[in-house]
Amino acid sequence: MAKPVPASLEREERLPSIGFLGLGTMGTAMARNLLKAGYDVTVWNRTTSKCDALVSEGAKRGVTPKQTAAACDITFAMLADPAGAVDVACGEDGAVKGLGQGKGYVDVSTVDGDTSKAICKAVRASGAEFLEAPVSGSKKPAEDGTLIFLTAGDKSLYDKAAPFFDVMGKSRFYLGEVGNGAAMKLVVNMIMGSMMASFSEGLTLGKKVGLDPATIVQVVGQGAIAAPMFALKGPSMIKGSYPPAFALKHQQKDIRLALAMAEDVALPTPVAASVNELYKRAQAAGLGDQDFSAIIEAFELDPKQSNH
Amino acid sequence: MAKPVPASLEREERLPSIGFLGLGTMGTAMARNLLKAGYDVTVWNRTTSKCDALVSEGAKRGVTPKQTAAACDITFAMLADPAGAVDVACGEDGAVKGLGQGKGYVDVSTVDGDTSKAICKAVRASGAEFLEAPVSGSKKPAEDGTLIFLTAGDKSLYDKAAPFFDVMGKSRFYLGEVGNGAAMKLVVNMIMGSMMASFSEGLTLGKKVGLDPATIVQVVGQGAIAAPMFALKGPSMIKGSYPPAFALKHQQKDIRLALAMAEDVALPTPVAASVNELYKRAQAAGLGDQDFSAIIEAFELDPKQSNH
Amino acid sequence: MAKPVPASLEREERLPSIGFLGLGTMGTAMARNLLKAGYDVTVWNRTTSKCDALVSEGAKRGVTPKQTAAACDITFAMLADPAGAVDVACGEDGAVKGLGQGKGYVDVSTVDGDTSKAICKAVRASGAEFLEAPVSGSKKPAEDGTLIFLTAGDKSLYDKAAPFFDVMGKSRFYLGEVGNGAAMKLVVNMIMGSMMASFSEGLTLGKKVGLDPATIVQVVGQGAIAAPMFALKGPSMIKGSYPPAFALKHQQKDIRLALAMAEDVALPTPVAASVNELYKRAQAAGLGDQDFSAIIEAFELDPKQSNH
Amino acid sequence: MAKPVPASLEREERLPSIGFLGLGTMGTAMARNLLKAGYDVTVWNRTTSKCDALVSEGAKRGVTPKQTAAACDITFAMLADPAGAVDVACGEDGAVKGLGQGKGYVDVSTVDGDTSKAICKAVRASGAEFLEAPVSGSKKPAEDGTLIFLTAGDKSLYDKAAPFFDVMGKSRFYLGEVGNGAAMKLVVNMIMGSMMASFSEGLTLGKKVGLDPATIVQVVGQGAIAAPMFALKGPSMIKGSYPPAFALKHQQKDIRLALAMAEDVALPTPVAASVNELYKRAQAAGLGDQDFSAIIEAFELDPKQSNH
Repeated sequence: MAKPVPASLEREERLPSIGFLGLGTMGTAMARNLLKAGYDVTVWNRTTSKCDALVSEGAKRGVTPKQTAAACDITFAMLADPAGAVDVACGEDGAVKGLGQGKGYVDVSTVDGDTSKAICKAVRASGAEFLEAPVSGSKKPAEDGTLIFLTAGDKSLYDKAAPFFDVMGKSRFYLGEVGNGAAMKLVVNMIMGSMMASFSEGLTLGKKVGLDPATIVQVVGQGAIAAPMFALKGPSMIKGSYPPAFALKHQQKDIRLALAMAEDVALPTPVAASVNELYKRAQAAGLGDQDFSAIIEAFELDPKQSNH
Repeated sequence: MAKPVPASLEREERLPSIGFLGLGTMGTAMARNLLKAGYDVTVWNRTTSKCDALVSEGAKRGVTPKQTAAACDITFAMLADPAGAVDVACGEDGAVKGLGQGKGYVDVSTVDGDTSKAICKAVRASGAEFLEAPVSGSKKPAEDGTLIFLTAGDKSLYDKAAPFFDVMGKSRFYLGEVGNGAAMKLVVNMIMGSMMASFSEGLTLGKKVGLDPATIVQVVGQGAIAAPMFALKGPSMIKGSYPPAFALKHQQKDIRLALAMAEDVALPTPVAASVNELYKRAQAAGLGDQDFSAIIEAFELDPKQSNH
Repeated sequence: MAKPVPASLEREERLPSIGFLGLGTMGTAMARNLLKAGYDVTVWNRTTSKCDALVSEGAKRGVTPKQTAAACDITFAMLADPAGAVDVACGEDGAVKGLGQGKGYVDVSTVDGDTSKAICKAVRASGAEFLEAPVSGSKKPAEDGTLIFLTAGDKSLYDKAAPFFDVMGKSRFYLGEVGNGAAMKLVVNMIMGSMMASFSEGLTLGKKVGLDPATIVQVVGQGAIAAPMFALKGPSMIKGSYPPAFALKHQQKDIRLALAMAEDVALPTPVAASVNELYKRAQAAGLGDQDFSAIIEAFELDPKQSNH
Repeated sequence: MAKPVPASLEREERLPSIGFLGLGTMGTAMARNLLKAGYDVTVWNRTTSKCDALVSEGAKRGVTPKQTAAACDITFAMLADPAGAVDVACGEDGAVKGLGQGKGYVDVSTVDGDTSKAICKAVRASGAEFLEAPVSGSKKPAEDGTLIFLTAGDKSLYDKAAPFFDVMGKSRFYLGEVGNGAAMKLVVNMIMGSMMASFSEGLTLGKKVGLDPATIVQVVGQGAIAAPMFALKGPSMIKGSYPPAFALKHQQKDIRLALAMAEDVALPTPVAASVNELYKRAQAAGLGDQDFSAIIEAFELDPKQSNH
């Protein structure tokens, strides 16, 4: 369900035009919410057929990132990985070539701090403003307009983009200089990975001592440690089913990056270090493409078939 | 705010009479809620002056645990530690001596499985039924009648005591044989201890890389890992304030007991083992009597003053 | 090969008479070395047939621990476990009943500090002196007379028993008050357990990245970290063979006891805590009765057979 | 003490000429041993004055790495870091420009696998053979000719260089393809770092329970876990003195690299991961430039001065 255009915007003479680069699952849902809210949206995707549905719903069709950025006030980019984000921004016919004074570029892809800083540099060199804005939340929150934006970069662009964030998400944070958005995401995902490992450890221990895991999930859901994640994933974990929402290998990668970040500031992080080894164990056992809740299997791995 | 007596009870000819042994902070609040709900409650406490307030509110005054148990249909006991629980149940003038066929004894104290089994044995030898029912929740939930009961033992007593649990708490679980209540509590507290350690690790890492800890608390509070505990304790942790609701030394003790339980079933629990060392470090640093959220200090302990 | 009686002893008019209680693998080898060195040795074992060989070699046959202790100046005891050690010392017809002023009792069994203190108390109450003297070393060093004695208790008994320790071992330490012998053994075994785990981790990592494990063992054997244990066990570990010299379950138990000792003094021991979980994993995989070097399997356990 | 030239070499008509690039503490000692053994040695160092002593002892003075490599059959390089190693091999006037068919280049610097592979590629492109040969051992073994060479690369060059390795060291290993030498060094240093952490943990625990740390060092030195490192560093560790032979920050770096290597092959390494956090803690406490045995301080760090 998309949210209505805020009253304050309705009073403006002209709504800013928005570009949207990258129409994967997330990008399509986000662009659609902007469109539903009444904005003037130009969409572009490398595989152009992915634009068809949105165009039929009222979006304009962008020719290249460059042309899209040139045609719009603010351009959003949602790419799958750092290489894609750099290419769409800085490549031949890239967005940067269409940017300039008075325009803004908001990268909502999840990339590392160094990639984000490189794109920022190129965007600012064109005279435009830049914001990194990785999102917390996956497909469903993207469709429901309940994402969380962890933004950093040019504050004035943040203020201008705020109404769009409010259409696509339920909350937004401005975190200061570029790189802080990526750092915040790693911190949150590090905590998430450790929580899932500890929850798995508790479920396994409870089961071994004769408790019903389903009851443990219920008890956990009543008290001070009740987290939506436990309620959401606990029931399927008990059945040994891990439909991938956030792949275990990606969770492990984020913990690894968080550990590297901690090394840089000489901070001991013994919990995450210990948890990381469990995700590695699960990955070595072939569970990398399952949901990260498959970490529970790491507590029950059986010995190799040998002749002891 | 106490809850009204359920309609089903009002139809009964005679409400069962209830004994309540042990009037500390928790016990007083629990007994008061039973009284407010209209039940016939007899209270006893070793230091008898602690009975005065409740007696003035309508409770009967018990003379000894034995006399109280003899006078009531179901007797609850809420003692501070295993030694107290055993003494009140099995000592001279202990409750067991007043119990017998048709009566029930519900121990809501938090004790270890062995203590619980010993009390169970004595109670059943008298002909009465037994239930262990440790609670999850502290002072405020006790007053608000929102405790969680983790019960195990005689199922028929559980059914009889259900209306009373519903007056004192917001949920109740029947977990099978005696010992399972204690086990469930250890599992939940083990997960809680690891979550708090991981949250502390993330807050410290974020702070070190330049993020605002208060913002981290906010971001965590928006997503899949939002747990009431983080929202409740995060703000004071950031200020370095740890008013004791659940003492760090007790949290460490519970993890130690959970690790011992895991040893008994040969289950590796590397997360809790790693976390335990952090609580030990915090305890060695003199933080044992602070709230367990003081674990965050374990990540920032400075070196001893030496002449390197 | 037994060592000759020291010159200083030969000058004495009468050699002290020695009792030896407990003739398992270790005890038999130790008693035999005392006998070979020319001492007057009385042996006792619960299963009396185990005395036959030594008696045929010149030992006297003891009737009971009580009678043996009564007949000898100094009595050694080498029992398999704490229960056996207490029974032989303090049971009916136990050694304590034959002890008294001027006699000494040396317990070379490996027991916990509390057991040792209990035996000490009973021995001293008889007027005799007591020494705990757990040994470091197994079957081969016992036969070769190269054990290490970690003694604690009455210093004058230590001085009297020194010549016997020198026959049975290659070195001896006097560590002060009773309990320190057990503590020293736990500290050393904790370090040993961690070293073996780390060595296993390195061997496995090397193998995974394409190095020859046999070469790793050789390289390790050349430098600053060359330890006899690595040279002795490395080659068989590589073959996946773990003939039990020191059972993995006993190593795990010693680490667990060391961790408990560390908890008592609030010392964080994160390495041993982490290592303990690996021994538990190996034990859960059915390797408890193998040599403790089977810990290497904990790094390569495969996932359970499931349908991912 | 240098070793004599092997008999087999004396029978050859012409001894191969040797180049030696890089005359730091290690390089000077190694080149001197080759010189003493009667070889024809040409030395070069960026700061040319460092060549003076060896030239006065009979060495020829090289002009550039290029000229030195051109003038010699086999050229050794001992540089301080990867950047130096690359520059001397591949820079302007670098050794590669003087190499060609029939010549050999042996890099005994400690560099990472990628650097080693890059130098290898350049050397082989010239037609010459390449060997990486990082050494285990520091100043004293370099002077005494007791280093350990962990070599990898062209086997025929290894065979040709063997007599020189035998002059400079006490053992040498051929490990196959380039990169394996670096990998072996990381594996060994990872084990070493964990052993030192565990030894420190044991010393601290022993001290806390009332044992004399000096006695623990002695006991450890008697048995299966006796390693030269413990005997060498234990006594000064007890005094809180850590004269840097191998800096703690370098030990931590090697563990970090080993952990990264383990990640690449998806191997869980929980011991090293746990140990790494301790070295980080010690480093955060300002001990990075001390000897790595200063890790013992990580177990005794005091809390920060606060107002709890």
